[in-house]
Amino acid sequence: MASAPLFVIVGGVAGGMSAATRARRLDESAQITVFEKGPYPGYANCGVPYALDGSVIPSEDSLILQTPESFKARFNVDVHVNTEVVAIDRENKTVSVKPTDAADESAITKVPYDKLLLSQGAEPFRPPMPGLDSSHVFTFQTIPDLKHVKAFIKEHGCRTAAVIGGGFIGLEAAENLQLMGLDVAVLEYTPHVFPPVDADLAEVLHAEMRRNKVNLVLNARVARIAAAATTGEEGGKPAHIALEDGTEVAADVVLAVMGIRARTGLAKAAGLALGRSGALAVNEHMQTTADPDVYAVGDMVETWHRVAGADMPLALAGPANRQGRLVADHVFAAGSRDPEALRRQAYRGNVGAAVCKVWGLTVASAGFGVEGLRRLGVDPEWVTVHPPHHAGYYPGARPVTLRVAFEKGTGRLLGAEAVGGEQGVDKRVDVLATAMQAGLSVLDLEHLELAYAPPYGAAKDPVNMAGFVAGNVMRGDVRIVHAEDLRGEAKDGQWRLEDVQVVDVRSLDEFKRGHVKGAVHIPVNVLRERIGELDRAKKTVVYCQVGYRGYLAYRILVQRGFEDVANLDGGYKSIAEGGWKALQEV
Amino acid sequence: MASAPLFVIVGGVAGGMSAATRARRLDESAQITVFEKGPYPGYANCGVPYALDGSVIPSEDSLILQTPESFKARFNVDVHVNTEVVAIDRENKTVSVKPTDAADESAITKVPYDKLLLSQGAEPFRPPMPGLDSSHVFTFQTIPDLKHVKAFIKEHGCRTAAVIGGGFIGLEAAENLQLMGLDVAVLEYTPHVFPPVDADLAEVLHAEMRRNKVNLVLNARVARIAAAATTGEEGGKPAHIALEDGTEVAADVVLAVMGIRARTGLAKAAGLALGRSGALAVNEHMQTTADPDVYAVGDMVETWHRVAGADMPLALAGPANRQGRLVADHVFAAGSRDPEALRRQAYRGNVGAAVCKVWGLTVASAGFGVEGLRRLGVDPEWVTVHPPHHAGYYPGARPVTLRVAFEKGTGRLLGAEAVGGEQGVDKRVDVLATAMQAGLSVLDLEHLELAYAPPYGAAKDPVNMAGFVAGNVMRGDVRIVHAEDLRGEAKDGQWRLEDVQVVDVRSLDEFKRGHVKGAVHIPVNVLRERIGELDRAKKTVVYCQVGYRGYLAYRILVQRGFEDVANLDGGYKSIAEGGWKALQEV
Repeated sequence: MASAPLFVIVGGVAGGMSAATRARRLDESAQITVFEKGPYPGYANCGVPYALDGSVIPSEDSLILQTPESFKARFNVDVHVNTEVVAIDRENKTVSVKPTDAADESAITKVPYDKLLLSQGAEPFRPPMPGLDSSHVFTFQTIPDLKHVKAFIKEHGCRTAAVIGGGFIGLEAAENLQLMGLDVAVLEYTPHVFPPVDADLAEVLHAEMRRNKVNLVLNARVARIAAAATTGEEGGKPAHIALEDGTEVAADVVLAVMGIRARTGLAKAAGLALGRSGALAVNEHMQTTADPDVYAVGDMVETWHRVAGADMPLALAGPANRQGRLVADHVFAAGSRDPEALRRQAYRGNVGAAVCKVWGLTVASAGFGVEGLRRLGVDPEWVTVHPPHHAGYYPGARPVTLRVAFEKGTGRLLGAEAVGGEQGVDKRVDVLATAMQAGLSVLDLEHLELAYAPPYGAAKDPVNMAGFVAGNVMRGDVRIVHAEDLRGEAKDGQWRLEDVQVVDVRSLDEFKRGHVKGAVHIPVNVLRERIGELDRAKKTVVYCQVGYRGYLAYRILVQRGFEDVANLDGGYKSIAEGGWKALQEV
Repeated sequence: MASAPLFVIVGGVAGGMSAATRARRLDESAQITVFEKGPYPGYANCGVPYALDGSVIPSEDSLILQTPESFKARFNVDVHVNTEVVAIDRENKTVSVKPTDAADESAITKVPYDKLLLSQGAEPFRPPMPGLDSSHVFTFQTIPDLKHVKAFIKEHGCRTAAVIGGGFIGLEAAENLQLMGLDVAVLEYTPHVFPPVDADLAEVLHAEMRRNKVNLVLNARVARIAAAATTGEEGGKPAHIALEDGTEVAADVVLAVMGIRARTGLAKAAGLALGRSGALAVNEHMQTTADPDVYAVGDMVETWHRVAGADMPLALAGPANRQGRLVADHVFAAGSRDPEALRRQAYRGNVGAAVCKVWGLTVASAGFGVEGLRRLGVDPEWVTVHPPHHAGYYPGARPVTLRVAFEKGTGRLLGAEAVGGEQGVDKRVDVLATAMQAGLSVLDLEHLELAYAPPYGAAKDPVNMAGFVAGNVMRGDVRIVHAEDLRGEAKDGQWRLEDVQVVDVRSLDEFKRGHVKGAVHIPVNVLRERIGELDRAKKTVVYCQVGYRGYLAYRILVQRGFEDVANLDGGYKSIAEGGWKALQEV
């Protein structure tokens, strides 16, 4: 191989363009060629939902940050758009390339490479679903998708939209379709939207969506997507989606955003190895395991998940960009003053840090929620706190529900998830994502020093609060139960509501507004005097609104001889907002 | 000592009350007594400036979160307000206590302790300054201070206010005095406000203050504070502050917030040892070095600074609160199920994470700025980036100026400082503060995975961006110079503006709006073609607006045989906003 390798990149968005530009910075003499199937290289694909209605991002042009000409001028990189790579000949180190719209194989040319990077992204998941091929049903990943949806809505005067899928894109698209004036339904196959978080945190999002007049259908089973007369496909009835339970959801336009699958067709045909998830397998330098001259990055590969301890796909822009950069570092290390440092650099794996705006709320997570951990076979402990996002007395304070999951015994951080207003949620999850990557434990969170002034936080930051609670749990200074335990869903079945005495230690006003079924009411401030009213021999669950007064009550009871006490994690707020209706009495 | 020690606390605000309530949670039987000199225990002292004008925090009552009665009811803690501890008899383990307003010593009683905690905070620094004792001059720490200031302004119909001191409290007070309708001046003794950050970052704050019609006087030397006729002290002239240079600054009311000094009178009289800074010396369990039965926390002590590697005072609420909690853990470890874990817990030291709202801006820092590091005798490297706080195409993006300082050779993180709009500044500094505490290096920032969606961040977060630049510097793949180097202030004197060829690689429009003195203009996109116009033998400094295109130009020049090239850190934006007027040509 010459000192300046022929570097060919398949896919010119996040990972591909990060690799191309970093490669150029490292090596002025390299020949760098990018083939992009679509019309736009290096565009801002994460912004697509926000360009639906002109009021947020004025038009799709705002997302087109570069052109082939600008890449050529600035980076001397040859970007071929509307150009598909249809085959890889690994033996002869060439790729077969053809214009996307070419009818036959005569248009195919062969392009040699020394090093090849696949950055092809992922394809929309399309389960068998009658009507999914109808002309009013769209995928929603790219700028062409965006243009098609906008044009269809305008042309057909759509008034109703259904979004099938309640993940990131589905939620972002739904909010922006509503800004366009459409009545919006979101159909989610599972019991809750935003899969990275637990059901009770997602329930807060559900409430926000309903408050904003979204027709939210959970556990939705689509029987058939029926088109309308306006689309020329069906007469009579307005366009709708028929669910298996007989419900019909109006849907002049449908976005099918039911998740994605790694785009592996080209790689598979070239004999490159897939991982267990079906995504492409790569090593820590992003080299495909089958061929060190072929690299792959982004949504099409599986990478090490630091919390799961396994390779998994992760479709996020940040990792894709950093992976692309690492590929250029590895291939063009010789262009550095410290080539060994670049060659040594390994992708460190993911924690899956993610954030999403959901109308006036923010949801964010890193690592896994409790549900996700259990799917991995992990039995975690977790704590839930609801502090204000900044000092409560400073105007505009809004509660953040913050849950931190950790390994029993060791306190190893396994997950952070948070829901709250527009500010402060992303910050706490980023701090926890950083802590996770640095190998801190939940016990370190007690000691973390974070910047505080009343408009930004609290002297005891929500992250510290979660650490205090978790530290108390780890040291045995409080025993907590979760709402699911009261429902009898805990493994040991020890804390079923029917079997315990429940003590509400809040104020009378709070108690009257709703409480746990069968709870007796003794405010914490008088618990010491009225302790005689409780049965010392009984298992006792105490709770307050968010957990703190319950913890005080726990400490009083335990120190006064109660042997079997537990405090309800997250307090009544977690039950009331978490959708645990069977536990409530109003 | 009995199993339930007599725990006496001097000072009932942040650290003291954290200790008292944690002590009670650990030990129901302990006798816990708090003596507070002022009238309010456990109030929100950080909120004081925001309660000046009713439009932010309605009244001082909002800051009074607890009363002696509420502490008694909930925590069974005896809080004595308006009560001063005037002496400690360490031999007999008693404190002498008297009502604050008691005229003579006959009111003194003696109270025994087993463990004593001093949490007395700090006193306003009062340099010799004629007129400082005038009745229209106020300190501004406590709720009584707040009441006095508000009452004075109302009673005397004040129209002008001067704040002497441009630290946290001074800046917060100035903004809130302005909300009250006063014309406000800020007089800062040093060359810039907000001492934790460097001068050029503070310059951005200066511009914001001037834009908001603050009369900002830097390097202010007060000759005399003159009172007005209305206060009954002086006739004729309106109240003003006379500066040594002859300037007079109108000031119907004056806040003297020139910093603080540890309140050590009581401790000194008791023979407790002070540290080098003059604050009280404590060990990692917050025990005074002279007496293990006397603990001290908060603004009155000096604690280990993790970056400086030395004991220093740090007057911040977060550390004070966590220190107070640790004292209770140490004293009442026996109340835990895992007493050894609590006893082992040591205060880990500080990074000094701080944040402040300055009108529409936020400034934050952790560790030290370059100026601060140099004062410590450290010769750091640093990088400066100006990315938008979230995706540039999403509405409302505002630039964050983020500087990360690190140790040459090792990349150890030494400081993070940032200035920007209301959002996103605190987040980046908290992430970097966490990284610092976890022992990450600047090279780890390249790999950090942070949550991204367009309303919250970028696929390459500002923290990553700083890491990329620093990584390039560490590996020798870019050489950077700073504005001070162009001014000939660098130690090696190698990059004086007079001695180098300077190349502006921005667009013509950008160049025309202002550029570095004597710069030639060659846009990066045509640099490869026009490289012949430059003198290869000359030292060359390239720059763009924020640093990225300059870095591209650097890579082009170096790879094409230029031997002595440097990119200007932070680009022209750092020069234009940083107050480097002598380097500019418009």
